[in-house]
Amino acid sequence: MASVDIASVQLLLARYVRCLDADALEEWPLLFTADGIYKVTSAENHARGLPMGLMYADSRGMLKDRVAALREANVYEGQRYRHILGPTIVDAENGGELSAETPFLVLRIMRDGETMMFASGRYLDRIVRGETAGELLFREKIVVCDSSRIDTLLALPL
Amino acid sequence: MASVDIASVQLLLARYVRCLDADALEEWPLLFTADGIYKVTSAENHARGLPMGLMYADSRGMLKDRVAALREANVYEGQRYRHILGPTIVDAENGGELSAETPFLVLRIMRDGETMMFASGRYLDRIVRGETAGELLFREKIVVCDSSRIDTLLALPL
Amino acid sequence: MASVDIASVQLLLARYVRCLDADALEEWPLLFTADGIYKVTSAENHARGLPMGLMYADSRGMLKDRVAALREANVYEGQRYRHILGPTIVDAENGGELSAETPFLVLRIMRDGETMMFASGRYLDRIVRGETAGELLFREKIVVCDSSRIDTLLALPL
Repeated sequence: MASVDIASVQLLLARYVRCLDADALEEWPLLFTADGIYKVTSAENHARGLPMGLMYADSRGMLKDRVAALREANVYEGQRYRHILGPTIVDAENGGELSAETPFLVLRIMRDGETMMFASGRYLDRIVRGETAGELLFREKIVVCDSSRIDTLLALPL
Repeated sequence: MASVDIASVQLLLARYVRCLDADALEEWPLLFTADGIYKVTSAENHARGLPMGLMYADSRGMLKDRVAALREANVYEGQRYRHILGPTIVDAENGGELSAETPFLVLRIMRDGETMMFASGRYLDRIVRGETAGELLFREKIVVCDSSRIDTLLALPL
Repeated sequence: MASVDIASVQLLLARYVRCLDADALEEWPLLFTADGIYKVTSAENHARGLPMGLMYADSRGMLKDRVAALREANVYEGQRYRHILGPTIVDAENGGELSAETPFLVLRIMRDGETMMFASGRYLDRIVRGETAGELLFREKIVVCDSSRIDTLLALPL
């Protein structure tokens, strides 16, 4: 990228959390490159370089499959998420690729209205330009959860 | 507006949450136009287009009346709020009016120090220029709460 | 400062919370001027102008001493923090010094994965230019906690 455009990065993140929270899950894979990587891990595993067992996809197609599975399971029927983000830091920019880190927290709101703190952590993102003018996409998104208690097996993406 | 100025929108939102959290409730109505609309509803009611029962005002005068009632009830004696906002997305700009969406969460801190997650959701705002140079005001603010458990009858505005 | 650069202020705050949350505590004192002041107090004490009993330092050296004590106590072994910030308001700019206010919340994640809402409040910051081009530093940071229940005696800085 010609220069670090923090506002564009923040907009990409804003669109990311909005499609997850607004039951517009089909838009979620479209924010990744075709070969985009998406991982969910814990801080402990991430620090030790251990393989992660929570969620993994290495293409937009795998993300779409996951969306289909979540639709099949009617996961939005029972719960919603609400993401709140902390301040983004752009750490590096190499050959048109940008590395950024953003803290997050996610609330889970159950159908009966009960609200709980579901997850916290940080996004480690590698971001590139898409084909449309001004569009940014995730080439890689690693979701590092603070707690190892997270169970995302049948839950929405973080 | 000549162009979308996201920083000005964020400043309006920052001032909005600060006056609520800092016991400067009298400043709250001044952030709306004279015919400003303020609604609090639940995600479920909003999605179904149902009338909302939580809070409603359609003028700055009604907002001032509400402030007077809250002062009468000494509502700040017993509790405080703390708003934290997610990333703002400006969705549209039509004829000098701007539509923006911002996720929020609100903590409630009771007099004895107990802190609870009170509410989460998103602000759907229609924003226009005020008469003072650079000033922005809410023409409409719809507070869509994730949970339907919210009871704001005798509480501070969200 | 020549002009209010809100993006630089947000970056300073982002770096501040990152070093605390990422176990990079040694970087924390470096974000203050040599005569930097750091205080943690409660909203009630702050409003009354009462002396604060939670944490106090009036130099970078005292902050470094505190870091050494926290390392001695292995405080990161047992817990981590996650800071999420609300929107920053720059209130004034006088003689190269900038006053800013930023809401915060802090989650505490225990070693066993339990996550709790630990603290909320607002940062009252006085910010100046450092010696490196573009660098900003805290000349004073007052952490005003909403609740008076906070016990930071053996905990990480807020």
